[in-house]
Amino acid sequence: MAKTSGTVPPVAVLVRRGERVESEHRVGFAVAAPDGRVLEAAGDAEREIFPRSAIRPLQALALIESGAADRFAVSEPELALACASHSGEPEHVALVRAWLARLGLDPAALECGAHPPLHAPAAQRLAATRRRPEPVHHNCSGKHAGMLTVARHLGAPIAGYTRAEHAVQRLIADILRDLAGLAALPAPAIDGCGVPTWPIPLGRLAAALARFAHPVGLPAARADACARLQAAMLAHPHLVAGTDRACTEIMSVAPEVLVKTGAEGVYAACLLKRRLGLVLKVEDGAGRAAPVALLALLRALGALDAKAAASLAGRMQPELRNHAGVVVGRIEPAVGWPALRQRS
Amino acid sequence: MAKTSGTVPPVAVLVRRGERVESEHRVGFAVAAPDGRVLEAAGDAEREIFPRSAIRPLQALALIESGAADRFAVSEPELALACASHSGEPEHVALVRAWLARLGLDPAALECGAHPPLHAPAAQRLAATRRRPEPVHHNCSGKHAGMLTVARHLGAPIAGYTRAEHAVQRLIADILRDLAGLAALPAPAIDGCGVPTWPIPLGRLAAALARFAHPVGLPAARADACARLQAAMLAHPHLVAGTDRACTEIMSVAPEVLVKTGAEGVYAACLLKRRLGLVLKVEDGAGRAAPVALLALLRALGALDAKAAASLAGRMQPELRNHAGVVVGRIEPAVGWPALRQRS
Repeated sequence: MAKTSGTVPPVAVLVRRGERVESEHRVGFAVAAPDGRVLEAAGDAEREIFPRSAIRPLQALALIESGAADRFAVSEPELALACASHSGEPEHVALVRAWLARLGLDPAALECGAHPPLHAPAAQRLAATRRRPEPVHHNCSGKHAGMLTVARHLGAPIAGYTRAEHAVQRLIADILRDLAGLAALPAPAIDGCGVPTWPIPLGRLAAALARFAHPVGLPAARADACARLQAAMLAHPHLVAGTDRACTEIMSVAPEVLVKTGAEGVYAACLLKRRLGLVLKVEDGAGRAAPVALLALLRALGALDAKAAASLAGRMQPELRNHAGVVVGRIEPAVGWPALRQRS
Repeated sequence: MAKTSGTVPPVAVLVRRGERVESEHRVGFAVAAPDGRVLEAAGDAEREIFPRSAIRPLQALALIESGAADRFAVSEPELALACASHSGEPEHVALVRAWLARLGLDPAALECGAHPPLHAPAAQRLAATRRRPEPVHHNCSGKHAGMLTVARHLGAPIAGYTRAEHAVQRLIADILRDLAGLAALPAPAIDGCGVPTWPIPLGRLAAALARFAHPVGLPAARADACARLQAAMLAHPHLVAGTDRACTEIMSVAPEVLVKTGAEGVYAACLLKRRLGLVLKVEDGAGRAAPVALLALLRALGALDAKAAASLAGRMQPELRNHAGVVVGRIEPAVGWPALRQRS
């Protein structure tokens, strides 16, 4: 009955109840260099995945390259927010509101839809005051503010800026295609916040991230945009995610590394000093497995020093507690995973 | 890199974004007869899984067999609640409170911990009144009320009734071992609500459910207890789960079938007329895949007539919408899954 194939990703993350394995997650990944070489992979590096929000820093390149960021005096914190899946904490929401006001736009211009803030206390405060979540609370509202800035700059329509045929999205598609080294992108699907998400092979995505990490040889405007976004993410890790979030904590203790989570179990990383790009995709889309797999990969690649590893121990092997607060199990990498060709 | 084995369950459920597969779920299952024969299986029928809440009706047998239900005049709705993972709607909570009051117990005797009601409007009402969730809101509070009833009846301590060594849990373990046809149960782990959960081979669990479905040949007290719990679940499907819940909707339209969900992607079913038991386990634990797989199996086994299938169409292939309410994809069974030896 088993579907067996050389491209089935291996079991990477185990969920244990007591000491027994209760559930398991298969993870495909690729690690690539700026020249496009795939140095490490599990599963099929040619398999197209939806990168979802994991490539938000690449989408944000359009904001700088177009000249929109300079024209509208977009600040470094705002650049970090443009790369974020933020938690909707007061700081995130206030910055997005101020940014939109500077553009002369009502928050209703955001086409991302609404969900409660990811930060539980912020969500509870909202519920306790019987207020409904607004688009500014959406984890993507910073990215959307960036897209609206580009639309303003291009003189393109505000309404419909999320559509694949809109000038803003066409600009982003060109950048992605270019960085991934593809002749063309397949037709996109629609992301959780309404913008297009283009399927891209895992290995090509990793190469695009490697180029972002080490933009030497790219056109000067793009190389400059990469450097500014890197600096913004490193300087403001709290704005890229939020309190108690994996992206924020990892970037706070491992400053060589930029990381960005995406829906459906995607994670992207740029190893700046090592000049590597990394993308992983949990086959089943489980968000709980993605950071555990990411940290196992970063450690195996030598991107976490002992101090960073110690401070991230609780995320490398998270405890599972039941509703009564009792530890009932844990999530951890499978023994021997990842099996890299070259260990650091 | 692929881990390939004859016991890896096949891909059963696909998550599509647009028309492309974004994520996929592997599902193991077993279908068994009351005599213990495994008639259909995918993956390894000998593999031990944690049945979690999917066997709540089997746990509830102790309530009747012990004599506790009759002594404390446990009603049919209360029996249904003892088999439930309820949504914490007002009706569920009021019934549990009244039951505990009749036992002379404070709701604080419940050791299940607390979480917000699964029913979103009930959770929102609680949050809007700034009240914290209590143990009576826990989806397991009916099961725990049943266990407390048994403890009262046995004259056993109330505190600690959730511990594996407590008389109530030992009674339940004996029933499970017996129904599964095992000489002994392995050591348990701790479930989400604090009670023991024993690992049991998938095929043995399916056989235990087949015996519950068709208790002919079992001791009279057990056969009677099975019949009473079946009747309670069929008469009160809303109490076994709640508004908009898969268990409730399936039992409301397919009265030949008892179904019960469990955490980490487990689903159990009793096909009463066909005298079959069915258990499935999503390998990665995804709750979104379990009802899609269950319905595909029930249909392939001939347990859903055309009318039931039509009314459950939205659960067989659920649409995925983004935060702006736009349909962005769907969840559906993989083509050709399940591959049964004998199709109905």
